[in-house]
Amino acid sequence: MSEESSTLADIPGLMRIENAGREELTAHCMELTHAVYPHHQVYGQYCTIHEYVDCPPELVYDYLRQGHHLEEWTCSLRDFAPTGTPGLWVGHDRLEDDTRIYCKVDAHPESMTVDYHCSWDQGEKLWMIYLMRVVPAALVLDRPGSVITWTNCRHPYYDANPHPDKSPRPDRPWVGDYWDLFYAGHTVEMNNLKAILEHRHRRGLPVCTAPATAVTR
Amino acid sequence: MSEESSTLADIPGLMRIENAGREELTAHCMELTHAVYPHHQVYGQYCTIHEYVDCPPELVYDYLRQGHHLEEWTCSLRDFAPTGTPGLWVGHDRLEDDTRIYCKVDAHPESMTVDYHCSWDQGEKLWMIYLMRVVPAALVLDRPGSVITWTNCRHPYYDANPHPDKSPRPDRPWVGDYWDLFYAGHTVEMNNLKAILEHRHRRGLPVCTAPATAVTR
Repeated sequence: MSEESSTLADIPGLMRIENAGREELTAHCMELTHAVYPHHQVYGQYCTIHEYVDCPPELVYDYLRQGHHLEEWTCSLRDFAPTGTPGLWVGHDRLEDDTRIYCKVDAHPESMTVDYHCSWDQGEKLWMIYLMRVVPAALVLDRPGSVITWTNCRHPYYDANPHPDKSPRPDRPWVGDYWDLFYAGHTVEMNNLKAILEHRHRRGLPVCTAPATAVTR
Repeated sequence: MSEESSTLADIPGLMRIENAGREELTAHCMELTHAVYPHHQVYGQYCTIHEYVDCPPELVYDYLRQGHHLEEWTCSLRDFAPTGTPGLWVGHDRLEDDTRIYCKVDAHPESMTVDYHCSWDQGEKLWMIYLMRVVPAALVLDRPGSVITWTNCRHPYYDANPHPDKSPRPDRPWVGDYWDLFYAGHTVEMNNLKAILEHRHRRGLPVCTAPATAVTR
């Protein structure tokens, strides 16, 4: 450990049992812990929500990785169709009139991560990224079913539309205007997702549905 | 869409633009959004923290997937050595005297997830699971470096030690007694992780160090 220790000794600001001790560590943690936290502190820069779903993780993952299901569980993403670019589709975000949303799914079965790379108005740079993951509830909650985590990070484009010229009209509100409502909006959508998956799974129905546009996605 | 629509129509509780409309959706989201949130609501059942680290994602992932580095960035996990079970090591959690912690790393390079499956006192059922993920900040924040997310779920064993007989002594506090301090404790550890990685990366030093016990892990 001597080499490691000497390296760590050069790094300012570390708080470890060796330099802080149990009592100081505990006292510091109690100082960081509060009865309430402001919205901005919790959801200002990153927005993560979690939900338990009574549906096996393999089925949840399979549902999420097929992006056309966004048309079911999101509030306002509809009518996806493939573009000329493989894997990239385009639909409408009905939150605003005439607003196109481009989307690509990046999913990994080993870790059951499903990332939706999206953007309003243009499909060249997909910067609105919805990071989701399905975790077997048997592992983390000792019960059947799944835990779904969903994280968004506040990309600077939320605060300033990089392509106002691509807006369908000058007064169309920008997606980033809604950032402060993401915690709430994503909670509503997560509730939809849970309701759909549990309804179908508990009745023995297939959880997946066919895409409206019959094209391999 | 007719088949899908009829299926969704059978599912109670969905809130979608078709049935709620923009104004009702927005009003509902504003009701869910508060100036402050109680600790229990935000960190009671799941505890996720996020941090930006000025170090390339590949290096951060490589550092995290090598479990012996837990000895550097955690406050109290020390002295890991391999057990007879491949991939499983045992160390000490110096938060309490004579407390052993067992740990196994499950990492996936494609999604850059690194999960630490741990347990105090016994290595047969690893139920304390630290779910971490490295996300390229270029994608989600439009800057170099990494975003690290870290989620814990409140497994029922946090609330009731399933093996009190394996405690080194009857009055040893239980790891779950600290659940309410996890947000704070993990924030301290995430700060350590950020400090170590940024210190080494900015100086051009290797971010990884050799394990104290010279065994392939």
